[in-house]
Amino acid sequence: MKVALLGPEGTYTHQAAEKYFEGLEPVFCSTIREVFESDIEVKLVPIENSLGGGVTDTIDLLREKDEKISGEAVLKIQHALISDESSIEDIKTVKSHPQALTQCKKIIEKQGWNTVEANSTAEAVEGLEEGEAALASEIAADINNKNVLRTSVQDRDVNVTRFLVLNGEPQAREKTSIILEPQEDRPGLLHSMLSCFAGHQINLSHIQSRPTKEKLGEYYFYVEAEAHGEKLEKATKCLETYGRVQNLGVYREAERPE
Amino acid sequence: MKVALLGPEGTYTHQAAEKYFEGLEPVFCSTIREVFESDIEVKLVPIENSLGGGVTDTIDLLREKDEKISGEAVLKIQHALISDESSIEDIKTVKSHPQALTQCKKIIEKQGWNTVEANSTAEAVEGLEEGEAALASEIAADINNKNVLRTSVQDRDVNVTRFLVLNGEPQAREKTSIILEPQEDRPGLLHSMLSCFAGHQINLSHIQSRPTKEKLGEYYFYVEAEAHGEKLEKATKCLETYGRVQNLGVYREAERPE
Repeated sequence: MKVALLGPEGTYTHQAAEKYFEGLEPVFCSTIREVFESDIEVKLVPIENSLGGGVTDTIDLLREKDEKISGEAVLKIQHALISDESSIEDIKTVKSHPQALTQCKKIIEKQGWNTVEANSTAEAVEGLEEGEAALASEIAADINNKNVLRTSVQDRDVNVTRFLVLNGEPQAREKTSIILEPQEDRPGLLHSMLSCFAGHQINLSHIQSRPTKEKLGEYYFYVEAEAHGEKLEKATKCLETYGRVQNLGVYREAERPE
Repeated sequence: MKVALLGPEGTYTHQAAEKYFEGLEPVFCSTIREVFESDIEVKLVPIENSLGGGVTDTIDLLREKDEKISGEAVLKIQHALISDESSIEDIKTVKSHPQALTQCKKIIEKQGWNTVEANSTAEAVEGLEEGEAALASEIAADINNKNVLRTSVQDRDVNVTRFLVLNGEPQAREKTSIILEPQEDRPGLLHSMLSCFAGHQINLSHIQSRPTKEKLGEYYFYVEAEAHGEKLEKATKCLETYGRVQNLGVYREAERPE
């Protein structure tokens, strides 16, 4: 199955896709926007990391584009320090995707390395120069014939990324992702909107506010509700009395690692 | 007055500080973490941008450190395209702080430029090489004797950054910033916590969820409540029945630009 995802070969998204899809034929894109705009119907995008937080590009593009979420995949992330150099003392600069740089802040600050942002962890490995190292998967070191100077350099071992599958075949209907856009700004409006979920005994497993990009202090909300079908329809009717509601898709919740 | 802030000279934080403090003696730091860890008591940090959203480093450090918010400053941001080159056609790579890169996505994607992350917009200007341009304030071009190839290249004109002043003298007591950390994960807990504000008729002007970094799906909340004093104390007592409450300071709300 052809799937559009963040490339090149050896990114964590690639690893997550291999785990989720049988007979994967990856089509690599260079930004999350390109994944969303790809002609390939089925897509896989990162939505959240346990250290860095929400992937804001993905959340904004879910609101902007008209893709349907059909599944979820969860992957434990372990960054390796990868270089052409053979000693950690020769490293001056470390390159990676901004999320990976955030997740390895402690070693970067301790060593006093400069940081350079790359479009993906794997691209950082491909573009290595003298005195540089990349933070990426061990697979990316293999593919590019580089040295692994240290494994598992992230700040915490609790480094898990969650991905969403777009436009696939849902494996089951368990939870629903929704964009909520309040139509007015008045005291307690968020509380009132959440009453629609509480009133119908629906739990939210995720809520994230993002700027509407219209005006400072104006937000929309990305939420994941542990409900679908009739129960969710009732909550939606209630929510629509407060603002715009965009249903992003119903899908099965992936198992969380221990 | 000595104030620690994100340097070098000519960053937007520097501009905001000039606007907020009389007789400013800026002490420049190279990361937001360094500002928080500076010996200089009074600090100025960015908290939110109308296009990029919350500044997650600042939010996480407010929770981690024990600084008191004493004020707020709001600045309209206009990025200029700055280079040693004299023509926009010679630009291949654009450097800036990740937030500025996010805010100028349209021109970057249209021109097909590579992006490189810098610690600040002004540092991007200082480190310019052949074929490169920086996104920064026009002041930064002046200071470094560079060319301004284009002014105001951000995606939208509605580009406003909000800053927090730490450990200063509050000009008035109007609103309060709070960290809320739920002690359990159960259906409707966020709704119940927000009931404490709604019940005491307190409006929230900002709410942002961030991962606790302990476990995927575990969040804390940074909120700004339009209240202080007795009313807020009551809400806090209510909130404490649901989780940990950290009062980050009481301060005056800055005027928003039109």
